[in-house]
Amino acid sequence: MAASPFSFRLHRTDAGCRARSGTLQTPHGPVETPAFMPVGTQATVKGLVTPLLRQTGARMVLANTYHLALRPEVEVVQALGGLHRMMAWDGPILTDSGGFQVFSLRRLAEVSDQGVVFRSHIDGRLLTFSPERVVQIQRALGSDVAMVLDHVVQLPCEAELVRQACQRTVLWAQRSLQAAQQLRSDPPQTLFAIVQGGLDPELRVWCAEQLVALDFPGYAIGGLSVGETPDEMYAMLDVTCPVLPDDRPRYLMGVGRPENILQAIERGIDLFDCVMPTRNGRNALAFTDQGPVRLRNAIHRRDPRPLEADCDCLACRHSRGYLRHLFMAGEMLGPILLSIHNLTYYQRLVAGARAAIQQDHFAQFHAEKQARWCGSSGDSAVEQR
Amino acid sequence: MAASPFSFRLHRTDAGCRARSGTLQTPHGPVETPAFMPVGTQATVKGLVTPLLRQTGARMVLANTYHLALRPEVEVVQALGGLHRMMAWDGPILTDSGGFQVFSLRRLAEVSDQGVVFRSHIDGRLLTFSPERVVQIQRALGSDVAMVLDHVVQLPCEAELVRQACQRTVLWAQRSLQAAQQLRSDPPQTLFAIVQGGLDPELRVWCAEQLVALDFPGYAIGGLSVGETPDEMYAMLDVTCPVLPDDRPRYLMGVGRPENILQAIERGIDLFDCVMPTRNGRNALAFTDQGPVRLRNAIHRRDPRPLEADCDCLACRHSRGYLRHLFMAGEMLGPILLSIHNLTYYQRLVAGARAAIQQDHFAQFHAEKQARWCGSSGDSAVEQR
Repeated sequence: MAASPFSFRLHRTDAGCRARSGTLQTPHGPVETPAFMPVGTQATVKGLVTPLLRQTGARMVLANTYHLALRPEVEVVQALGGLHRMMAWDGPILTDSGGFQVFSLRRLAEVSDQGVVFRSHIDGRLLTFSPERVVQIQRALGSDVAMVLDHVVQLPCEAELVRQACQRTVLWAQRSLQAAQQLRSDPPQTLFAIVQGGLDPELRVWCAEQLVALDFPGYAIGGLSVGETPDEMYAMLDVTCPVLPDDRPRYLMGVGRPENILQAIERGIDLFDCVMPTRNGRNALAFTDQGPVRLRNAIHRRDPRPLEADCDCLACRHSRGYLRHLFMAGEMLGPILLSIHNLTYYQRLVAGARAAIQQDHFAQFHAEKQARWCGSSGDSAVEQR
Repeated sequence: MAASPFSFRLHRTDAGCRARSGTLQTPHGPVETPAFMPVGTQATVKGLVTPLLRQTGARMVLANTYHLALRPEVEVVQALGGLHRMMAWDGPILTDSGGFQVFSLRRLAEVSDQGVVFRSHIDGRLLTFSPERVVQIQRALGSDVAMVLDHVVQLPCEAELVRQACQRTVLWAQRSLQAAQQLRSDPPQTLFAIVQGGLDPELRVWCAEQLVALDFPGYAIGGLSVGETPDEMYAMLDVTCPVLPDDRPRYLMGVGRPENILQAIERGIDLFDCVMPTRNGRNALAFTDQGPVRLRNAIHRRDPRPLEADCDCLACRHSRGYLRHLFMAGEMLGPILLSIHNLTYYQRLVAGARAAIQQDHFAQFHAEKQARWCGSSGDSAVEQR
């Protein structure tokens, strides 16, 4: 049997904290971690042609199984040559299992150990996701990394329900692994498990231990960044990460603001995805080292400065005044340029983190970034998830 | 006195028709003619970052004085370093005078020989455009080519009103020229006149003769493509072009469909602008050599072929099925990619025309294109202007 085209190599753990740097090897090239994956829900990172997406520094992107299964539908993606060919993206792709979408966004009809029946938000028809079906769909989509179907609960939630959902998530993970092993491995794909457990430390540890016993190639932490405080989220990372094996990548799903990302890296997380850079960009909010900048604000009207003097992204070839004009005039180019800037900002942030870890300076890097952000207006009305 | 940074050199007139090839020299580089200018109404060609705009083959773009004077306002453009710097576009820019917008799109308060008073479509405030003011505004915007303020009438229109508007256009052209001469020439800018006269051949000839006597560096033909038939438009070109001097560029404003452009080139037009490639692109219509393709049509759902096999634009790296998916899913990338394709198509069309003229083959080139377009569904519901 040929060696797996997937591997994770841990290069270093920072001497001062749990921050790690590594390389996730995939059939579509390596991903240096900590890494941030832009979100391409419907097989497009909103507003970005793939050469510009690549130019932001992104190496791996996320697409959503739930959305793609509904539209254009799996058999269409297959007819069009799979996700990579469809998107004209030659880097690795991770597909979310749809668990988050099914349980949080849609009209749920029924959930049982068998799977989940829900209504399409597009045409109302009934659809079924089972652990096995979701693995098959992702294999058909052709992503590099597939995620297991998980049972996500809305927080706050009764303890017993959280526990049941967590047990079901473990059960489903096991079935997902078996389903994946029964499919042929062409194109090659790997499968990550998802730790659930709400805000219950014991449940998180239990869930992680159960999944680790199943020996997955990678582990995600899900069900966070859904309304809890940052400290509650960090507490869950503090208890969960130590249970996860050092030699497997750790992915914190759907997180987050720049400060959340550094806090999570400090706790040992390797992979991130979030809609924040693109969604906030579309809403005229730019991330900078001086904190968020709201471009609709009249203060920017005649400002000839770029968002950031040392940023080489396409948005920063323009003035803040021009970017504001684009938003005031309802021009598409505003959302496009700010998405580019924000994605570039996030990529620069994780690249800075990687470099700092290599020199055992992560805590210092983190503190410096935090100090600069806090020196700003400290606006917190950014949209998450 | 230094030589003008503007010149027009006529390379050749096709042996078989009036089609011409030439070079318009500007301070921001040369423009090979016949040329098509993408429309950047509000200082952005909708959805395109400037490197991608350049990649379509565009060399010169149009921006609208009317829109920019209202928003972000002239003094803001100046504070932001002028149009080129604001847009991060280093190629030549032509600004329309606002005549077309003032008379066709807005609530007109009053027009006299002095100028035109109108209400802003943004906040309803009263504004005045005079020939002199419009020259000053364009100088402040910093475009390479400015256009005179013209009095555009809506067709059909009473003959006497067309005549009066035409006389006023000549009067205003003279005052515009004087106003331009009184302004300092830094940055350098040239000024084109606009021939009006509705669908009256005698009036068109009279107007052209009057403007030619004023010795403008370039001449536009305006007030066409506003609802008349293509044949009526071509008839106006047939009578007007022969009056215009061979050694000055001729610009047909706001035209048009690919077939209109070839018909106009055959009659001696050098420059074009039109919203068709971008507006239709945003509405899921692609121009191809086989005629227009409507990507919302279900026939494209599983089609793995690109729009055009021999097109090297970014859209043609994707399948028709993917492009359809983007439009059905309401993704920004659909309008972006189709705008890129259509602009690339238009640039390839005029590049083909230039090459054909160099070999005295324009009529044949035109006939071949026409035959391919007519072999298609011949759909005519594309949006113009």
